[in-house]
Amino acid sequence: MTESPHDPLRIAYLGPAGTFTEQAAVLFAGDNAHPDFVAYSSITASAEAVAQREVDVAIVPFENSLAGAVGETHDLIIHQLNLFIVDELIIPIEHCLIAAPDADTSEIRVIYSHPQALGQCQRYITRRFPDARTEATLSTSQAVARAIEVGDQVAAIAPRRAAVLHSAEILEIGIEDDHRNATRFVVLAHNDHDPTGDDKTTMLFSTANRPGALLRVLKHFADADINLTRIESRPARERLGSYLFLIDCDGHRSDPALANALERLEPELDRLRIIGSYPKAPRP
Amino acid sequence: MTESPHDPLRIAYLGPAGTFTEQAAVLFAGDNAHPDFVAYSSITASAEAVAQREVDVAIVPFENSLAGAVGETHDLIIHQLNLFIVDELIIPIEHCLIAAPDADTSEIRVIYSHPQALGQCQRYITRRFPDARTEATLSTSQAVARAIEVGDQVAAIAPRRAAVLHSAEILEIGIEDDHRNATRFVVLAHNDHDPTGDDKTTMLFSTANRPGALLRVLKHFADADINLTRIESRPARERLGSYLFLIDCDGHRSDPALANALERLEPELDRLRIIGSYPKAPRP
Repeated sequence: MTESPHDPLRIAYLGPAGTFTEQAAVLFAGDNAHPDFVAYSSITASAEAVAQREVDVAIVPFENSLAGAVGETHDLIIHQLNLFIVDELIIPIEHCLIAAPDADTSEIRVIYSHPQALGQCQRYITRRFPDARTEATLSTSQAVARAIEVGDQVAAIAPRRAAVLHSAEILEIGIEDDHRNATRFVVLAHNDHDPTGDDKTTMLFSTANRPGALLRVLKHFADADINLTRIESRPARERLGSYLFLIDCDGHRSDPALANALERLEPELDRLRIIGSYPKAPRP
Repeated sequence: MTESPHDPLRIAYLGPAGTFTEQAAVLFAGDNAHPDFVAYSSITASAEAVAQREVDVAIVPFENSLAGAVGETHDLIIHQLNLFIVDELIIPIEHCLIAAPDADTSEIRVIYSHPQALGQCQRYITRRFPDARTEATLSTSQAVARAIEVGDQVAAIAPRRAAVLHSAEILEIGIEDDHRNATRFVVLAHNDHDPTGDDKTTMLFSTANRPGALLRVLKHFADADINLTRIESRPARERLGSYLFLIDCDGHRSDPALANALERLEPELDRLRIIGSYPKAPRP
């Protein structure tokens, strides 16, 4: 990134406010004096806003520790937009039980939330509120708004930030069934990041119809003593059974060891695209 | 499979009738004299019916040539149920424009379909019916039922089979934007398939915290001259950044070359589970 922390920074995210993506956007903005958060209605729309230069960066969910790769984000990085990853952020997915302030919550009859959040808290709901009915909303933020509207005997499941933004009351924190649930967000921009000394690089390559290509790629990295942290296969969209590979490795693309490995690798591949080098996120 | 084509065969699938999954189920039943098709409301429910022995097999979507791995199916195979893959089927995803018989279709004002099908035909809709409104339904089958109910000036987008089942009229065939769209279904059962001479094997292995493990696995297969047709990484659900790998290779697990490779491989891995050997589907 070339922006200094004192430039105004326009940050696109999947809205509405109060989602985990907004939480990642706030974390990314950090000590920037003038962050300008712009909510979009989809992951793709937020990334396209970067391509159209309506905003500087977009924060998009990339992978989740339970559900795996976020397909929409991978498809737009691979097939649609020529953007770089400039940073990554890891956000623990922590859900709260939320109600209207001063509501009567002695008996909860209805629990509102996005279907994904209801699914992530299913065992909690069955154990604590066996007689409650769940009702799906379009976002966790809408669930909180609905709980405030109805008031008594209802609750919403949403991130803590949604309760703060709606001035609602948090009844319980960390009600998700699986506490190992975390999402890795990436920040898309027109350029990637300068070296920091503790970086990561994401690259895309195509093996087309050469079956041993993945093995040769892995061997190149192993010989150069470069640690691979993720290998993800995605459809090449040519036919069923043809794949592209997205690889994350330790190091910046300008580090001599990685730069040399990439140079030796390139002639062996049909296609090699560096999606970006960026600082490693601290593990939560 | 131990069933002969003359045994009654109970086949679970994601309903309602008229979906691509039902089409795969019909293809799988083949010349079985007494197939008994049972519709379930989710992929997981249909697979659990096999585990509970309510049915003999379940037909589930496994991967799509455009969208990639079907997360729900992968999660239940890997993390929830101890079932085998006994067969695979490849179904081209072909959509039709469908209307009520004798309806006035000189002007189409509303097009009903499942959001996924609407997305797969978006360019077609914009080009052919720029003024039509799209309306989401819970399934493509429901879209056809709705089009028949309303009658004039509306249409549905659904597979050809949905039109046949509802005795509706097909106005146009093959309206999907991308004709390379195909879905690979797998058949889940309590046992896998006997060797046929042209088979495939799916296996799951865990590399836990040993970064070079995938390279060693690939090298074992390359040394044994065994062709890998798919490598898919999935979250190990331990922490962000830990993965399991699902590999498809040519051959039956009882073929000497593959059996030897697996025997040499096993001691090097934390975990190796054969998900099944089964006949290769013909490419469409």
